[in-house]
This record gives sequence, structure tokens and C-alpha cells, in this order.
Amino acid sequence: MKMEVVNRYITIKNHVEGAPQDSDFELRSSPLVLSMEPGSDEVIVKNLYVSIDPAQLNRMKSYSSSQDCSTFAVAMTPGEDIDAYGVGKVVVSGNPKFGKGDIVAGFLKWGGFTVVKSGGMLNKLDPMGFPLSYHVGILGFSGLTAYVGFFEICKPKKGEKVFVSAALGSVGNLVGQFAKALGCYVVGSAGSKEKVALLKEKLGFDGAFNYREETDLKSTLQRYFPDGIDIYFDNVGGDMQGAAVSNMNINGRIAVCGVISEYTDREKRAAPSMIDVIYKRLKIQGFLAGDYLNLFGDFLSTTCDYLRAGEIQPLEDISDGVESIPSALINLFEGQNIGKKIIKIAEE
Amino acid sequence: MKMEVVNRYITIKNHVEGAPQDSDFELRSSPLVLSMEPGSDEVIVKNLYVSIDPAQLNRMKSYSSSQDCSTFAVAMTPGEDIDAYGVGKVVVSGNPKFGKGDIVAGFLKWGGFTVVKSGGMLNKLDPMGFPLSYHVGILGFSGLTAYVGFFEICKPKKGEKVFVSAALGSVGNLVGQFAKALGCYVVGSAGSKEKVALLKEKLGFDGAFNYREETDLKSTLQRYFPDGIDIYFDNVGGDMQGAAVSNMNINGRIAVCGVISEYTDREKRAAPSMIDVIYKRLKIQGFLAGDYLNLFGDFLSTTCDYLRAGEIQPLEDISDGVESIPSALINLFEGQNIGKKIIKIAEE
Repeated sequence: MKMEVVNRYITIKNHVEGAPQDSDFELRSSPLVLSMEPGSDEVIVKNLYVSIDPAQLNRMKSYSSSQDCSTFAVAMTPGEDIDAYGVGKVVVSGNPKFGKGDIVAGFLKWGGFTVVKSGGMLNKLDPMGFPLSYHVGILGFSGLTAYVGFFEICKPKKGEKVFVSAALGSVGNLVGQFAKALGCYVVGSAGSKEKVALLKEKLGFDGAFNYREETDLKSTLQRYFPDGIDIYFDNVGGDMQGAAVSNMNINGRIAVCGVISEYTDREKRAAPSMIDVIYKRLKIQGFLAGDYLNLFGDFLSTTCDYLRAGEIQPLEDISDGVESIPSALINLFEGQNIGKKIIKIAEE
Repeated sequence: MKMEVVNRYITIKNHVEGAPQDSDFELRSSPLVLSMEPGSDEVIVKNLYVSIDPAQLNRMKSYSSSQDCSTFAVAMTPGEDIDAYGVGKVVVSGNPKFGKGDIVAGFLKWGGFTVVKSGGMLNKLDPMGFPLSYHVGILGFSGLTAYVGFFEICKPKKGEKVFVSAALGSVGNLVGQFAKALGCYVVGSAGSKEKVALLKEKLGFDGAFNYREETDLKSTLQRYFPDGIDIYFDNVGGDMQGAAVSNMNINGRIAVCGVISEYTDREKRAAPSMIDVIYKRLKIQGFLAGDYLNLFGDFLSTTCDYLRAGEIQPLEDISDGVESIPSALINLFEGQNIGKKIIKIAEE
């Protein structure tokens, strides 16, 4: 009864410089025995859906292992398999908390199977009637990130003016939808005409613009926010942050969630006016959703309610198969995804 | 009994470009009748001590009146007298709250006398046994700024590692002293060898360095903070902020109090790594002490207790006479002051 499978997984060949390239990645295979040594408390999960996140690029960089970042973003080792949030099904379990066939969510791997060691982040998942892919995106870490960043960090009030950059991204689209559901005025930026149309027509944003067509972001934001910005949910950093700071209202809040501009080019930094920061009493706050797991229950019930009421909707961009992972990450940095980028690894 | 005096005051001849120059200022005189029209509720104050603050330069800039800053930093009009925090003595009062001879504190003018209109910020002052000059600095707005920025914005804990830039400035020296009194590890930066010695020997800082002698601020801070920075009290902005962000610990807090680098050159902006801001969950918060007048009582009693116990000491740099005001402001931007810059206008 010792079944052996071939586990195909994605790894990096080298640390990534700048934007990721196809040549940075490699599809490897290794045999995996689907059984447990006696006494092992590991769990083998067949991966069903895994997440593609811009932040993963950070850990592919060599600087992650330098003193700069060593304490907070552990660098990946080329050749090793790569962590990713995902949903899967238990095939073998040495851990009494899990049984064969359980649907689980947690940190899996970019590959066909994950061997989850004791202490790894893994939980049984109740799909609550929603498709499993929802639990990788809108009901998973992307959703939690949007929820925490918007509600906890920015403490929004109905009627406030909210700007979201990378507004069709996995997190941005949810922040905008949460803000609309709360009764805020919401404008988003994105990188194409099609995305702008989607933001306005499908997601009900009050306004949206293609940042690639704008030459002076400060004036652009002035046009979309004649009464100023109260909350800026920052997914991009760089010049956009500076332009937003110039347009913030007194007591404005900026949640710094992502800096896609810095991920590929560390020199492309935001340089907001600190005179504005002082006189407008701005708060610029970085956060990681992982610090707020205590809010996961609140997040889930709020978001499920909104989903069932049709007030928000998932925006998924799903590709098939382990081999589609590298291009999915590469496309993310080229702005080609619409909503949450997910890889469907296998049928349930 | 209609006494008339010559009121000498300082004004700007033009909006100031870059750092202030002697030629930007003018000493003017105008006759002032020391009596009230019947029904007037104005108060005429003989100014005794007035404050010199770097932030005053902001209002001397032409951009203050542009759309950029219009809502939060009202530009001065060349030729008009200039507001400054100060302490004075009432000479004539049409306001029943004040009587002749009252010692008062509030927004006065850079000049010999101030006509305080109804609604102007003016309060009777109880010197509590301290010299009047203390009430312009350590027990005035500079003190409140240090108190609010450190205790309210940064929420310090005993043993935390605190970095203060412009640490011999009016606010910086108090932040450092508050931090030492609380039991923090404190390092300050300043612009000369003499200042560094004062910080260590007179104010008891754990470390201090002359930023002009350092070529790589990031490494400098790493040397002084081998265990990282928990709190950065930022008085300067620019490169120092970027270097501090690189050395901050997780959950670090940055109170942005002043950006002396931006005051004279708006292009000299801080460009902190937003990747650090995210992964280290940093908070960068601007504030104005004027928003926290409700804490003035707490601030005053805490600070007086510290003063009486000898745990903190005032650091005053006092010049004499209205005519010394322009050079006092100019010297501030050349880093020539030690502690709180105050002008003694007249004897009580």
C-alpha cells in the first residue's frame, strides 16, 4: 500500500534581480511516498488551489538574506520549493487533528503536494458553501489583508474619500468594494483602459484612471478628489504615494500594503513631502495581515455576509497547473492580472 | 493719560526663498497708543520673551499661500508683524479676563508690543516659581511638542531604544531628556563636536554623533543601535529618516515633528524604504502640538515634577532685543543654537 507519486513543483534557479523572468524559474519533480513513518506528525496535502502574491518576489531576492531584511523576510534558497497560501486535501496524516480527505487551508507549496510539518500553518477549512478558490483569495489572506488594512489601520467612516492604487489587484479590488459597501467615495488607479472600465462598471467605483496615461499624478488626484483624500490604501509606493500625500486631507491615513514599484526596483522609492505629513497630521502605517489572525473570524463573517448580500463580489484570475505558476507571477508584475491570481493545481 | 509708544517689530520684506537671509527681514516701527477705545475687548501686551521656531520659516515661504498648503499653513504677508509664542505683561486691557500687570502667555508678535484681539490665543500665566523664559520653551510650546510627540505619538516603554535627530534643538533635547527619565536608551544626532559633548555630558544621552562627520548614516545608526531603533523622533527629515527606517525594529514608531531639511529645500525629501515600512509594520506619524492642548495640564505637571526633581533641565539660548530676531532665525537654520532659542524683548 506504499503509494508513490511524482511531485512536480516550482523553484527558483537563482535569486531574482529586478522583475522576475521565465529563466529564473524551474519546474522540478521528485518522488513522494504517500505514507507516514510511524510516529511522524506530518501531513501530506494534495494541493488544489495556490495563491500567487507579489510579496513572494521579495523572498526571491538576494537582499532578503542580507542584514537589511534578515529578520523579517527570510530569503528562499534556490532549488527549494516555495511557500504559498493555498487550499488542499489531506491524503495522509500523522497528525490526529487531520484525517484523510479533510479540506484544509494554510501555507502550502507551489507544487502538486505539500508535506506540512508539525507547527506549519494548516487549518481545516469549512467552505461554507463557497467555491474552494474563494478561500485562497477573497476569503483567504488577500481578503484578510484588505479587511485589516482598511478597517483596522485606516478606521474609515462612511462618506470618507478613499483612494486605492493597483485597484484591480487581489487586495485593492476588495478594499474598494469594502469601502463602497461602507458608503465611501472610492477612486482607484489601474494600468489599462479595460481595467478602468471594470473598476467603474463591474465594481461600482466612483472613479478610476489609468495611471499610465497620466503625466502628473498630483493633478490627476486633485481632479478625482476635489475635496481631498481621507484614506489612501497604498499597493504601489513610488510616485503615487507622493502624489497622494500632496492630496491628503488633515488627519488622513495611509495604509502601506504593498510597494510593487520597490519590489522590482529598490531605488524607485516614495518620497512624500514630510511638511505635508506634519501639517496634515498624516499617519503612514505599514502592516502585515499575519499579525491580525485574531480578526480572522470577524473578517470571515463580515465578508461572507457581504458576499451573500451581493454587496461585494470575488474577482478571480485562475490559471491551470503547476507549470503555469512562473508566468502567473511574471504577469503580475506586468500588470496583466485582473483580481486575485490563483493557480488551480488539481480537481478536488 | 493717552500714552503713546513706538512699537518696533520685525517683518519680512518679501517671501523667503531657501534659507532665510538677513536681507529678507526688516525692523519697522509704528506708533502705538496705550489705551483702549470704549467697547474694545482687545488687550495690549508688552512682550517680554518670544520664541524663535524653525516652523515659522514655512509661513514666510510663498508656497504657503499656494493651493499646496493653503489649508494648513497660512502665508505671512510681507510688511505685517509676525506671530510667535511668547510671554508678556498686560499694559492695557479691554477684556475683563485680563487686568493691567497680568503676566500672560500665548501668541504674541516678534516686536515690542502685541495687540491681542478677541479670540487670540492668550492665557494668564502662573510662573509656578520658574523663570518666565521657561514658559516660552520647556514649559511652553516646545515642551508640549516634545511631550505629545514622545508620549502620545510614540507610546514609549521603559528600556526602548530611542533616536532623536537635531537632539540639541528646542524640542529634541527635551525628547531625549524625557526618554532618559523614562529609562530608555537614547542616542542623538547634532551638527558639531561641541553639541555631541553637551548631549553626552550635560544631558546624559547614552550616545551622540555629529552627522556632518558621518558619510553613511545607515551604518552610523547601526553602530549606535546594534539592537535596532524602537522610536525615532524626527526633527530633520531627509536622508536621516531613510537611514533610521532601515534601522527600525518591528513595530517601530516615527514621530515626524520637523523636517528642517525640507524647510529650506523642498526637494530634499526623505525617501524611506516602504518595504521596511511594511515588513517592520512601522508607523510614521505627523503631528502638531496645537491639537493636544487638552494635554497641556498633564504636560505641565509632569514636566514641573521632572524639573523640580532635577531629572530634566532647561537648555536655553537667549538673545536680547527685537533687533536680534532675524539673526536668531537665520542661525537656527545654520545649526548655531543650543537648545531653545528665545528672544528677551524687555525686562519684566
